[in-house]
Amino acid sequence: MLLEPVSLTVDQAKIDLYAAVSDDFNPIHVDPAFAAQTAMGGVIAHGTMSLNLIWQSLARSLPELDMEGVTLDVRFLRPVRIGDTIASGGERRGDGAYDVWISNQRDEQVIAGTLVIAAQQDVRVAASD
Amino acid sequence: MLLEPVSLTVDQAKIDLYAAVSDDFNPIHVDPAFAAQTAMGGVIAHGTMSLNLIWQSLARSLPELDMEGVTLDVRFLRPVRIGDTIASGGERRGDGAYDVWISNQRDEQVIAGTLVIAAQQDVRVAASD
Repeated sequence: MLLEPVSLTVDQAKIDLYAAVSDDFNPIHVDPAFAAQTAMGGVIAHGTMSLNLIWQSLARSLPELDMEGVTLDVRFLRPVRIGDTIASGGERRGDGAYDVWISNQRDEQVIAGTLVIAAQQDVRVAASD
Repeated sequence: MLLEPVSLTVDQAKIDLYAAVSDDFNPIHVDPAFAAQTAMGGVIAHGTMSLNLIWQSLARSLPELDMEGVTLDVRFLRPVRIGDTIASGGERRGDGAYDVWISNQRDEQVIAGTLVIAAQQDVRVAASD
């Protein structure tokens, strides 16, 4: 079973709004002139801004999912930059866990990991196989 | 070494704003009347809204941290509700990984897990021991 993909094209306005909501005004996110002079070479999006897409995929595919008991194990692999279009994905494995990922427009994974739903949850699956 | 704590008191306005930014308008978050009739008995905050506090702690304590190569393994233990005050925490272990958590005003952990920074990163620690 695949999780419903959710995509997002990143621009400075979205990053600025995310900074305000998350109270994270690190200049690597919100100061293009500063960011350009760092090793990153420009603004990068907040890691959790990307991670949120996995939640949206979960919410759409498993609308009855209760987050209590959910374990998420993710690795941040690549930065997300202005102009990137990222998309979430996920696939249920034979053991009931989900491989989850965020990829960019070059099909590079920017976040990858595993999500495990507590066994006692009998989650009705909205998405088709 | 302890990560700098960051706290947040949750209200409906913050949840509504977070819903807009994350495009996650699940009624369990944004519809108090609906949420009251569910097993949760009322509105709960987005899981990633709480998780963001861990990022803020990291950003304050390790300002040079590059998210690339960071692995986060967290378990969502309890819901966060309107009126709750949650706070992030973290402690560097002997093996260099960080135990990280979010607790509520009753000192109950709502999220707990581990964060591992890629070994090649020589992160300057801003917080004191």
